[in-house]
Amino acid sequence: MKASDLEKVYNRVAPYIHKTPVLSSSLINEIADCEIYLKCENFQKGGSYKIRGATNAILQLSEEQRSRGVVTHSSGNFAQAVSLSAKNLAVSAHIVMPTNAPKAKKAGTIAYEGIITECEPTIEARERESKKIQDRIGAAFLHPSNQLEVIHGQGTASYELMHQESDFDYIVTPVGGGGLIAGTCLFVKELSPKTKVIGAEPMEADDAYRSLISGKIETNETANTIADGLRTNLGHHNFPIIQKHVDQIIRVTEEEIIDAMKLVWERMKIIIEPSSAVSVAAVLKSPSIFKGKKVGVIISGGNVDIMDLPF
Amino acid sequence: MKASDLEKVYNRVAPYIHKTPVLSSSLINEIADCEIYLKCENFQKGGSYKIRGATNAILQLSEEQRSRGVVTHSSGNFAQAVSLSAKNLAVSAHIVMPTNAPKAKKAGTIAYEGIITECEPTIEARERESKKIQDRIGAAFLHPSNQLEVIHGQGTASYELMHQESDFDYIVTPVGGGGLIAGTCLFVKELSPKTKVIGAEPMEADDAYRSLISGKIETNETANTIADGLRTNLGHHNFPIIQKHVDQIIRVTEEEIIDAMKLVWERMKIIIEPSSAVSVAAVLKSPSIFKGKKVGVIISGGNVDIMDLPF
Repeated sequence: MKASDLEKVYNRVAPYIHKTPVLSSSLINEIADCEIYLKCENFQKGGSYKIRGATNAILQLSEEQRSRGVVTHSSGNFAQAVSLSAKNLAVSAHIVMPTNAPKAKKAGTIAYEGIITECEPTIEARERESKKIQDRIGAAFLHPSNQLEVIHGQGTASYELMHQESDFDYIVTPVGGGGLIAGTCLFVKELSPKTKVIGAEPMEADDAYRSLISGKIETNETANTIADGLRTNLGHHNFPIIQKHVDQIIRVTEEEIIDAMKLVWERMKIIIEPSSAVSVAAVLKSPSIFKGKKVGVIISGGNVDIMDLPF
Repeated sequence: MKASDLEKVYNRVAPYIHKTPVLSSSLINEIADCEIYLKCENFQKGGSYKIRGATNAILQLSEEQRSRGVVTHSSGNFAQAVSLSAKNLAVSAHIVMPTNAPKAKKAGTIAYEGIITECEPTIEARERESKKIQDRIGAAFLHPSNQLEVIHGQGTASYELMHQESDFDYIVTPVGGGGLIAGTCLFVKELSPKTKVIGAEPMEADDAYRSLISGKIETNETANTIADGLRTNLGHHNFPIIQKHVDQIIRVTEEEIIDAMKLVWERMKIIIEPSSAVSVAAVLKSPSIFKGKKVGVIISGGNVDIMDLPF
């Protein structure tokens, strides 16, 4: 994408989102031995960056398409994002959600007037239920991560970050379905070619790490990670972008995720979800890469069930 | 105090503190039916507003006094604040701390190199131990709430708030030892005479509420409140200021405190401690006062033991 196209995407979604703050902590910088800037999408509307992609996609539907509503499947954050952005744009939103989605994310979806259909927690079941709703009412399908309009929208978090702070050596994002990191690459590589984009992934769902090695989309047989937003696989739209632009994927253990989450909660007094802590953990565990560098970290969201914490 | 004196206090402490952000939430405003602006001292150095008062007091000691160190007693936030501001100014800090102080606050005090002496959780024991240290090494005593230099320093949170947003109908602060609300009054009444200052207090430690009625300093026989920062009594320096300027004290139940804390965590993704939730709870429960008004709320701190949450 050209810089003028990126700006067009940003200007399209900007009226519907928060420009989230960038925070840092001298204590965490001391521990990590580098300069970390957290782009706080946990403060975003709907509690995660995902409203950016949802809004960009819905705004590109025709009037007629909008009148029939939209449908998506999501373990949580995209569900809330689609519900909220659809509500903002007076479109009805159908959400297929696995039965094991966190309570807070279900409650958020309902609060934003999303119409929930529950399904088994497998990719196949999610896709099957979504297809049924598309066929029945003609709703436009929005993919949480493997659709270009969505990918472009997610990249606007980095667009803002690079205007709030400059000269990053690295930008780190978590990798789940691949939408955030693919969108991030497109914006970063155009606006700051010297900045490297690094992905962070749980060991327990390291499909992207393996995909970059094998050169084809690998899947997770199990995904027993607390980072509930990162259990999904890459898609054919985002994988080529990731292959081309992502410099490295760092994997972290469940213990490292929980420790990083606790550190940010205790020291920065902000609530980040496990999927976001994955990126912080990746930076903390890799001084050989990040020492002395300027590092932007996309804090993807803050939707945690505070009645069910891992510490 | 005159406006020029207030500015002098602010300029004295400003180089040593964070200018904390002011946050609001459309969802919480909807629930409360008023416009709430949270002054986020949970993001302050040391995790609470108390570094403001500690810094102002230490900066007014002579070189010779500073060389002998400072001593204070505190259940937690002032302990961290004195330790940190003393460390910043190369002064040694002795901290008398009750045995039941939250672990996170003890750990913070140690991290900032405060030298802890433990004592029984009574005001008498705290004062006795502090006196011993003064006598033994000649350390200057800093009172957490009943000392004019400390009171003036605490007021600088409102000074900032009133420069970040204007035209408040109300400013609400929690009331513990009385230092924050007294300092707040001095600044608010000079800078914005139309703005009313309201205190918020747990039912379980409502000494300030009763003191304003009786006209003399009342004490708490018990203080079984989760708001660990608000268990202390008013002092003879701050009580006359509170009597003169505070318009009302609103009392809240333990359940209201926990609900308000949970609401702010879940909806705003920021970590506030129970003592801060007391003010939010007071606004939420009093639509007859706050409906349609512009309300500043001093979020006093974010030092919570996240391993031991009330929900």
